Amino acid sequence: MSSVKRVLIANRGEIAVRVVRACRALGIESVVVTSTADRDGMAARLADRAVCIGPGPASQSYLVTDNVLSAALGAGCDAVHPGYGFLSENPEFAAACVGEGLVFIGPRPEAVAQAGDKARARELARSAGIPILSGSPVLESAKDAVAAAGELGYPVLLKAAAGGGGRGMSVVENETELAARWPAAKAEAQSAFGDGRLYVERFIRNARHIEVQVLGDKHGNVIHLGERDCTLQRRHQKVVEESPAPNLPEDIRQDIRRSGVRFAEALELDSAGTVEFIYDADTRDYAFLEFNARIQVEHPVTEMVTGVDLVAEQIRSAAGERLRIKQEDVEISGHAIEVRITTEDPARGFLPHPGTVTEWIAPAGDGLRVDSHCEPGYVVPPFYDSLLAKIIASGPTRDVAADRMVAALGGLRVTGVPTTADFARAALDHPDFRAGTVTTDWIASRGLPDYLEKSA
Amino acid sequence: MSSVKRVLIANRGEIAVRVVRACRALGIESVVVTSTADRDGMAARLADRAVCIGPGPASQSYLVTDNVLSAALGAGCDAVHPGYGFLSENPEFAAACVGEGLVFIGPRPEAVAQAGDKARARELARSAGIPILSGSPVLESAKDAVAAAGELGYPVLLKAAAGGGGRGMSVVENETELAARWPAAKAEAQSAFGDGRLYVERFIRNARHIEVQVLGDKHGNVIHLGERDCTLQRRHQKVVEESPAPNLPEDIRQDIRRSGVRFAEALELDSAGTVEFIYDADTRDYAFLEFNARIQVEHPVTEMVTGVDLVAEQIRSAAGERLRIKQEDVEISGHAIEVRITTEDPARGFLPHPGTVTEWIAPAGDGLRVDSHCEPGYVVPPFYDSLLAKIIASGPTRDVAADRMVAALGGLRVTGVPTTADFARAALDHPDFRAGTVTTDWIASRGLPDYLEKSA
Repeated sequence: MSSVKRVLIANRGEIAVRVVRACRALGIESVVVTSTADRDGMAARLADRAVCIGPGPASQSYLVTDNVLSAALGAGCDAVHPGYGFLSENPEFAAACVGEGLVFIGPRPEAVAQAGDKARARELARSAGIPILSGSPVLESAKDAVAAAGELGYPVLLKAAAGGGGRGMSVVENETELAARWPAAKAEAQSAFGDGRLYVERFIRNARHIEVQVLGDKHGNVIHLGERDCTLQRRHQKVVEESPAPNLPEDIRQDIRRSGVRFAEALELDSAGTVEFIYDADTRDYAFLEFNARIQVEHPVTEMVTGVDLVAEQIRSAAGERLRIKQEDVEISGHAIEVRITTEDPARGFLPHPGTVTEWIAPAGDGLRVDSHCEPGYVVPPFYDSLLAKIIASGPTRDVAADRMVAALGGLRVTGVPTTADFARAALDHPDFRAGTVTTDWIASRGLPDYLEKSA
Repeated sequence: MSSVKRVLIANRGEIAVRVVRACRALGIESVVVTSTADRDGMAARLADRAVCIGPGPASQSYLVTDNVLSAALGAGCDAVHPGYGFLSENPEFAAACVGEGLVFIGPRPEAVAQAGDKARARELARSAGIPILSGSPVLESAKDAVAAAGELGYPVLLKAAAGGGGRGMSVVENETELAARWPAAKAEAQSAFGDGRLYVERFIRNARHIEVQVLGDKHGNVIHLGERDCTLQRRHQKVVEESPAPNLPEDIRQDIRRSGVRFAEALELDSAGTVEFIYDADTRDYAFLEFNARIQVEHPVTEMVTGVDLVAEQIRSAAGERLRIKQEDVEISGHAIEVRITTEDPARGFLPHPGTVTEWIAPAGDGLRVDSHCEPGYVVPPFYDSLLAKIIASGPTRDVAADRMVAALGGLRVTGVPTTADFARAALDHPDFRAGTVTTDWIASRGLPDYLEKSA
């Protein structure tokens, strides 16, 4: 790859390890930035070089644009991979990279900006002829919100325009609740995203989360790599992801995929991205939710059913190469399921649990893949999300993949910190999951922890 | 599985871990025997229970039938899985298990005995109409050997009737060499196998090693699961294995598979086994070599192209279940390659190198599988083979699988002991390997270590 020879990886944990491996497979050098907490981590040791850029809290290291850029330039890198989270969807960061003559391994800064603004993204979807949820424009006051919600009909979702990834939204059941929630929601949005703008949206009771993986290049080509179903969520955080989506009428599946490509084309997407949709299990309608201008945590399930290395494709597109795959060559084969293993304690309200992993034996076997930065002795820092590993199981059918996942979760051995493995296992063994009938509020409404206790 | 509820695993290392995982996936308990050297190993920790049966040297632990049987009975096991090596192909051990009322997870003791005697196995193949190498019966003296070799034409292979797995054979170029080699060969066979019988066989210069995975049940059903090519060898030890065999005419491939099934039928095989053939790359003839009445090190490549869990099938067949797969349902899809990572030092004549693995980061990614008992801090005991891990890479084509393997080997990180990873990587990158034209003496005759030095 002529224009990319040394990549700075501006991230940590499993995704930093994943990007190091992709670089090595492409014959590209990798430099990883670390906080002091991650200085001896797996990514730092696997990369060709590691540069420490500040103390543990991300606000003093991974989120400091100047430190990241200095590391990139100081280490002679010609490109930056932002991973997910941190600076990955920050248009100023993307622009700053480009300004310093670095290849940003992600969409054009303007596309990142457009996708990151929910209102602009919605408008783009609408103009591309993609169904969007009925909702209001950005609202000025609680009074305007009450008026808009009255037109939509309760319940409604009160959402931050700059939110995303399940953050910055709450379900509101009636006028009183909406008026009461408004000031706190505004303050939270301001503090979390530096942007206090809010709007309201129709709330779908029996919703499923379906997202389309799209991939573009700098030559105007865009393809999709099928969809993922990420319906199993706990407090808007994905717990299990899979591809293809189960129990979805074939005409709707094809329509959603086409809408994904239309959105990416409208955005002139020149990298990997994900178009998220909400699917109404009752009416069989779907609507655009948001666009993620980055690689996603759950990208491996798409890799396992398509055989396409998404991180390698991101790097190739950023380097100016043409997509090597045509839409008609994309073949979705078999089924893949991912489970996120986090150090949260299901017995204590999923309390995050920093600590030392004293024993770590990852499962292995046919159809399994484990993406992880964990190893025996790993100290889970208190500063970041608590993702320890992603276990991905694939098989010719969904049931085979699910059975392999259940066996893999049973064979995972972690001591020193609690994990969500048994919780996920209970979900995967549940008849509702096997039937493909779960909805995004299933864990909350079915009280999965009760089920867990019974099965324990 | 009604008759198998708790399995004793009479083995160690990666295969013990593999069998523990298979048991867990089937809902069966596992008890692993260990030597004092393996007492804290991964298999011991993953199994439901571990029983220490003696000191480090296998002759005082893993090879002591009485200790293994006492452990099985004492722990309330109803079945024994012997893994590979150790007691796995010892017909007395198999019979002793049966005698104690334990299910032996392998072929009937009589089949183990018949397969283990090379002369009897050859005779069985011949009577089943399978090509065999021209060779002598068991010989009484050096004089008889010289006469027999004269009829076959030099070079010949001088082989121990009780040998196998590449052990107990030597190439002899002429009469003088044969007469000189005879007494030492006899003594070696007596000491290694407790059986000094020898015979001579035609030696094929440009040979490839092709073997057929077969699977039977106690109801007379036998199928094959395609073939593996294990041609890349160093001193008769397999270095790289793959499935399907590359560069093999389709009619010969089908014929070899049919011969594999015919042999298994003649043996009335009721478990998993492997029929090994030698293929003459010059004449395109093939001939029966030997039968392995056990699971093989390289079984994962077959699992990755067929989706069949061979260890689970072994256990099911032993429990008396009927094969769940019909021959016509076996589909070979894509390509898989396995590399054995051993702690031998290629720079010092592949000297085995016990020691402590101070760092261990296994590769991970799409299409990769790592079967291993290794972890940071693992102490490689001096008593056993030095296999640390098996890396298996699969992909839609052989080149994709090989590229993934090369990337995986580059991403493997081991410190504290030398490994064969770079050696294997050089082999996999070599044009001869990519063209599928290597023969069993390729490493020796091409001087791969030289190639390694050049590429380093």
